[in-house]
Amino acid sequence: MISRRSPKPSPKKNPPRLSLGPSPADSPGRVSLELGGGGLLMREFLKKHILPSFRSPLLKDLPDAAHVRRETALTTDGYVVDPIFFPGGDIGMLCVNGSVNDLVVSGAVPEFLSVSMILEEGLPEEDLKKILISISRASSRAGVQVVTGDTKVVHRGQADKLYIVTSGVGRVVARADPRRIRPGDAVIVTGTLGEHSLAVLLARGDFSLKSSVKSDCAPLVFLLPLWRQGVLWMRDITRGGLATNLHELTETLPYSVVIEEERIPLSRPVRGACELLGIDPLYLACEGRAILIVSRSRAAAVLNSLRRHPLGRRAAVVGRVEKTRGRPGELLLATLAGGLRKLEPLTSELLPRIC
Amino acid sequence: MISRRSPKPSPKKNPPRLSLGPSPADSPGRVSLELGGGGLLMREFLKKHILPSFRSPLLKDLPDAAHVRRETALTTDGYVVDPIFFPGGDIGMLCVNGSVNDLVVSGAVPEFLSVSMILEEGLPEEDLKKILISISRASSRAGVQVVTGDTKVVHRGQADKLYIVTSGVGRVVARADPRRIRPGDAVIVTGTLGEHSLAVLLARGDFSLKSSVKSDCAPLVFLLPLWRQGVLWMRDITRGGLATNLHELTETLPYSVVIEEERIPLSRPVRGACELLGIDPLYLACEGRAILIVSRSRAAAVLNSLRRHPLGRRAAVVGRVEKTRGRPGELLLATLAGGLRKLEPLTSELLPRIC
Repeated sequence: MISRRSPKPSPKKNPPRLSLGPSPADSPGRVSLELGGGGLLMREFLKKHILPSFRSPLLKDLPDAAHVRRETALTTDGYVVDPIFFPGGDIGMLCVNGSVNDLVVSGAVPEFLSVSMILEEGLPEEDLKKILISISRASSRAGVQVVTGDTKVVHRGQADKLYIVTSGVGRVVARADPRRIRPGDAVIVTGTLGEHSLAVLLARGDFSLKSSVKSDCAPLVFLLPLWRQGVLWMRDITRGGLATNLHELTETLPYSVVIEEERIPLSRPVRGACELLGIDPLYLACEGRAILIVSRSRAAAVLNSLRRHPLGRRAAVVGRVEKTRGRPGELLLATLAGGLRKLEPLTSELLPRIC
Repeated sequence: MISRRSPKPSPKKNPPRLSLGPSPADSPGRVSLELGGGGLLMREFLKKHILPSFRSPLLKDLPDAAHVRRETALTTDGYVVDPIFFPGGDIGMLCVNGSVNDLVVSGAVPEFLSVSMILEEGLPEEDLKKILISISRASSRAGVQVVTGDTKVVHRGQADKLYIVTSGVGRVVARADPRRIRPGDAVIVTGTLGEHSLAVLLARGDFSLKSSVKSDCAPLVFLLPLWRQGVLWMRDITRGGLATNLHELTETLPYSVVIEEERIPLSRPVRGACELLGIDPLYLACEGRAILIVSRSRAAAVLNSLRRHPLGRRAAVVGRVEKTRGRPGELLLATLAGGLRKLEPLTSELLPRIC
């Protein structure tokens, strides 16, 4: 009575594509890797096809964390990073910090997490244990409690080792107020860019390059007190990098934002790898860095607070909100060579399965 | 510079296994399909290896929905159902109702949902749209708001079409109180059993059997008022079926619970299919049915309330808490033939990817 369908061989690994154009394998009307890149494509897909059918005012701006009641925030993120262990972290640490950071930058104190796992049959139990212990440690470190979870196992070849989705609940203590942003306000990044992306990429062995770079994956709870010190807007720098994440704010402002290339904090190995591979670090994802917009008069104090924390030692003012250079809504890069270049958001997948 | 790893062919579909023993492909120390079956195996794995490293008192009982504050509940569930469209529903409707029902049976009014999707490259966009619209409709019907989400796309062969994880936040209005359960209290099921499992199984085409059976997938919000009418405990009947889900309660009681086989509500097509395929409907998952334990004096009133709702028309008292038959903690079936049989919980995967 049981009929066996013939197994369909499917390629397990594709090389990462570094081009921004559509891949030759893509066909119209099918989901492409680009759709999941955290860029414009998915936002446009959702806005065009999906949001009209959801009558949820909270969903309108596609928030990473929604403030569902006056005092409660909810966030969710899926983690499909490949490999699941990488220099400086693993998918367990990543899934905790990712949700913790979404809450922090939304203005909420992270309190509770749920963890939902989709496991591929055949995953070594040792790996599962390591990752669960890593979830436990990362949640202790960030001060959150894992309170519920779920596990599904799918057949071999229907997942790649394991995927995790975490949701986080936090207590709202602040709210970004981008309408108060004025020319002269500072753009601060809390640390060096791109370590997470490069650590994962190099761990994949896709490039014949050795490097000491480690993921920056870390909880950003130390940023919470800054909400009371003149921070007007925060965003963790994930998929799409500094340029894409900052562009989402900039395009809503009646001013331009100018970033100074020479002020971007980069570690030596990241700078080297980016030059060698021809990758722009402004588009690389981090997992423990944030962008802050701070009112002009408070910027120095915020920078000092940041630099006193081990995770903020390399914090820097990288740019300003401006009225005179560029047009309203533009994000510009003042290059080392002295030029002024428009930074566009990433429209599609640059580095698949980076988080 | 880019090195391509040789693709590893992987069988895409395996036939469902109906035996309860380990499959020959399983090797020790590796995650088997059985681990994800909602049965004893995963509970034991978690209790042995994982919970000791999580110092969260809320996780102790592995709740489907955790009451994180006096007034707030959090739940999460992953959905990997295959096929994604089945008679009576689809993965979109399922992921909403699943989280809604976990909240309801925990005593919380469902309010907010997050939706996290993992998509396989190549998924038809039309399918994605249909599912998102289905999520939207199901959430309207259940009275919940989708407030945040996330999307990841993985390469072809690294997922099977799409997986969804929903998390739900609800307002706590009641709490189960199993310590108040006494001999004579009624075991009520809110409707016929097994439709969801059979609809999915037959839609897969693994059995050469035609049937009119449709999934029972539905929101259980109509049960919420019953919390004030003498309900002492509620559980939605998901993986593991009536027997496994009721056993989880029974094993903690100082009494036995006896179910009468002749009172189990079954639709004609489910009864027929189960007989033909040799499947025990007591172990089949539903997605719109619940077990209630109701104090003896209130059982008739609760049954009447249930039957007035379209989703409760086939509700029935199927058993009683007992002091004289069986031993404390035992779940027993009084069979049609007049015998008394012990019902054990499902220890492992019966029907993979049923939800």
